[in-house]
Amino acid sequence: MEEAIRKLDAFFNPRSVAVIGATKKIDKAGYVIFKNFSTNKMRGVFKGALYPVNPKEESILGFKCYPNITQIPDKVELIVVIVPAKAVPAIMEQAASKKVKAAIIISSGFKEVGNKELEEQVVEAAKKGGIRILGPNCLGTYYSKTGVDTLFLPETKVLSTGDDVVATPRPMPGNIAMITQSGAFGVAALDYLTGRQMGVSKFVSFGNKADVTESDILHYLLYDKETKVILVYLEDIKAGREFLRVAKKVTAKKPVVVIKSGRSIAGARAAASHTGAIAGSDKIYDAAFEQGGVIRARDMEEFFDMGKALAMQPPAFGRNIGVLTDAGGPGVMTVDECEALGLTVERFTEQTLQKFQELKDKDVILKIAATSNPVDLTGSVTDDMFEIAAELMFQDPNVHGIILLGLHHMPGLREKYIDGIVEIASKYSKPIVMCDIGETEMALYTRSRFDRLCVPSFASPEDAARAMKALVTYGLYLQKTGVAEQYMAECIRKAELKR
Amino acid sequence: MEEAIRKLDAFFNPRSVAVIGATKKIDKAGYVIFKNFSTNKMRGVFKGALYPVNPKEESILGFKCYPNITQIPDKVELIVVIVPAKAVPAIMEQAASKKVKAAIIISSGFKEVGNKELEEQVVEAAKKGGIRILGPNCLGTYYSKTGVDTLFLPETKVLSTGDDVVATPRPMPGNIAMITQSGAFGVAALDYLTGRQMGVSKFVSFGNKADVTESDILHYLLYDKETKVILVYLEDIKAGREFLRVAKKVTAKKPVVVIKSGRSIAGARAAASHTGAIAGSDKIYDAAFEQGGVIRARDMEEFFDMGKALAMQPPAFGRNIGVLTDAGGPGVMTVDECEALGLTVERFTEQTLQKFQELKDKDVILKIAATSNPVDLTGSVTDDMFEIAAELMFQDPNVHGIILLGLHHMPGLREKYIDGIVEIASKYSKPIVMCDIGETEMALYTRSRFDRLCVPSFASPEDAARAMKALVTYGLYLQKTGVAEQYMAECIRKAELKR
Repeated sequence: MEEAIRKLDAFFNPRSVAVIGATKKIDKAGYVIFKNFSTNKMRGVFKGALYPVNPKEESILGFKCYPNITQIPDKVELIVVIVPAKAVPAIMEQAASKKVKAAIIISSGFKEVGNKELEEQVVEAAKKGGIRILGPNCLGTYYSKTGVDTLFLPETKVLSTGDDVVATPRPMPGNIAMITQSGAFGVAALDYLTGRQMGVSKFVSFGNKADVTESDILHYLLYDKETKVILVYLEDIKAGREFLRVAKKVTAKKPVVVIKSGRSIAGARAAASHTGAIAGSDKIYDAAFEQGGVIRARDMEEFFDMGKALAMQPPAFGRNIGVLTDAGGPGVMTVDECEALGLTVERFTEQTLQKFQELKDKDVILKIAATSNPVDLTGSVTDDMFEIAAELMFQDPNVHGIILLGLHHMPGLREKYIDGIVEIASKYSKPIVMCDIGETEMALYTRSRFDRLCVPSFASPEDAARAMKALVTYGLYLQKTGVAEQYMAECIRKAELKR
Repeated sequence: MEEAIRKLDAFFNPRSVAVIGATKKIDKAGYVIFKNFSTNKMRGVFKGALYPVNPKEESILGFKCYPNITQIPDKVELIVVIVPAKAVPAIMEQAASKKVKAAIIISSGFKEVGNKELEEQVVEAAKKGGIRILGPNCLGTYYSKTGVDTLFLPETKVLSTGDDVVATPRPMPGNIAMITQSGAFGVAALDYLTGRQMGVSKFVSFGNKADVTESDILHYLLYDKETKVILVYLEDIKAGREFLRVAKKVTAKKPVVVIKSGRSIAGARAAASHTGAIAGSDKIYDAAFEQGGVIRARDMEEFFDMGKALAMQPPAFGRNIGVLTDAGGPGVMTVDECEALGLTVERFTEQTLQKFQELKDKDVILKIAATSNPVDLTGSVTDDMFEIAAELMFQDPNVHGIILLGLHHMPGLREKYIDGIVEIASKYSKPIVMCDIGETEMALYTRSRFDRLCVPSFASPEDAARAMKALVTYGLYLQKTGVAEQYMAECIRKAELKR
């Protein structure tokens, strides 16, 4: 690991943190952030030293308060800065003299509102002291394991009725890293990931990226053992070559999914006024992502769905998909979407067709079942039929991945097949994704059980197909760059397949 | 109303029903369907006479059983047929002699498995007796108000653990009609609509459509006062001209959203083996839908989202959208998607820009807020700011519809603005849709509150944009065909705007 990248560790594992602009006013960001740290320290999760910095207070939440960082008797690795923009350059100079390693600048009022020079002063001061800066105009980092949480949005919110409701939850630990240029999208993502039970390894909101860029964070996450998939929300990339260089390195080891907004002319104009991002031609981004092996999601839902699939399943080393269903219509919808996405749903090999015929002859599956791909076991499906058919499909050498549509409405289907399918899938290094349609008890149970067992579930046929597309895109990229075998060997070593 | 169409009323409002193939075997369709009727009769919902027909039973669930329909002493308006395919022609002959009005043939084993002649015999017999047939190979109808429920999938299912879980729920009454060629998609849709609290006026699964087609049902629903929007799942249309004729008539009065599967070659092949549908070129369907004013959804989620928007909001009579947000990133994503869909997000008129400037000058909204469209009130948003900005946007003559992104994470935002926005929107005949991102308490609360007040909410910016697209597509169609004013006058008469 390069030294500059190693330094980023202070953003996630700081031995000591000073919160500059900590306050007792509970509706202020400086209160929320300091409280996050102090609470996590009480709970024994944050193990570092904690210092509030505010010249007007003696102590905050029981912690002795310092008028400025230089007064803190011990070393400070990380500072979190929540003071008005114009005060930040002076703070950075003090931080430099204090030999601080890293600074998260939450404060806004810099380049995004036209104050480019002020931002440059801050960067200048930091550079002199060898301090890495995250932000400004960002939310900073969240890492559940060390209790670092610089999000100034409290987990709950009090409504006018007096009710306290969950508003900005922190997700459980997991293998998805989420990094974002937009803070608002970042908290929305945390809310989404929490509700969908998708665990997060690291969260980084990098805002104006005056120093630390998306490329730096990607590079850091390459070495992060807890991260299996990286989700990135971007509005622009300033150093394109650097991004491409890092992306190639990272995507050889772990998938990266990006949502790049500002695709349209009006969108780019809006983005410019938002983070000061100057978006280039969207086609250039498309090309860069493709070259770097970065998978681009078309919209928010696809973004998370792709991340989920890549976090749970191995890539597909080919674009021919086996579709297994108990519901004709949704089966057709899946095939439609596969073809629209450039995947194929080809007739099985003769050997597989033969094996299905034998099952029909033995009355194991219905004679009227369609079995040439898609396999439609019809509404008469049973748990056993699904399992037997799935096994045959995994065995077909021409099938690179399987989409299972297990509509629970069919009367003969129980829940037993879920664990059965997962067991069968675990024997093969091909991916499987599933779909059940519905928003009531049994549908929710079915999807959540599959998810828990790392077969990613989706609520519509097309979502399942799009998730499979991500697995295919990544698999083909690994093949093209000649690292597919190496990647799979690594997965097997880590026993990460299907899990 | 044409006589042939009036006759379809027997499928929803029968004064007497005979269930041919009713049985005591609880895992059989003939039991489930008869039980639906008998339960609904006990509950006082189904008010018609009910007759089980089965030569082997004396009585079923306390109802006297008849060996065949001709033995039933009174008139029979509707028969529901659940006997093996080969026995159906004889039953239709008896039904004809009994002067039955309508028959729902649940049984499969007809054209969809190659038995074309058998199906023709059934139709022949029915025609002679003037009986309208729904099916065969279908689920029939569900109409909550009269207790007609021919779905053979029970509402709950017993798992192997012994737990009884909701599997195929029946949705609450509402203004969306759902009609479907695929039974499996139909029950999945009911499950979806129930879970999403979207009420259904009528449900029809028409299967092989040997007699009653999608066009007949659309025509019937044109006159159905409870139906405001019609959702249609199709795999093929056999009588194209008839469809076009009826569609034009219907869409002048109510929106029709269709999902037509079998788009791809492999998909069409799968559809053919499923319902025997022979899909024509997909482009021909596209053209027909456009000409008939039918809105085609690209996928399942869009299908329901479009239906939801059209059920709750008036159409947009122009393609320029105002985007109002408290979150920069998601705002950009919305603008991107609008442009991708052919909508525009143009700068406001000078007058509107001026009014926003005045709000800034008076410190009502932040000076750094972007206000030229999209309007980004930033993370400092308050309930009041949202309301004031929305009002200005509704007033801009160049804005034809509004997408509101109310990300609840912003600390100054409470829930008060929800009712405020709804109140403002109710004064204008322009549509509004909203998005909040997240899957935990506050996000779920916000979306459900907006939905309840008939401002349709969506979980991603792109979904909101797609829903708005449907409102624009429909509005422009009404304008093009010269019925826009008439349509709106009718809405006002029914006081259906924003509700």
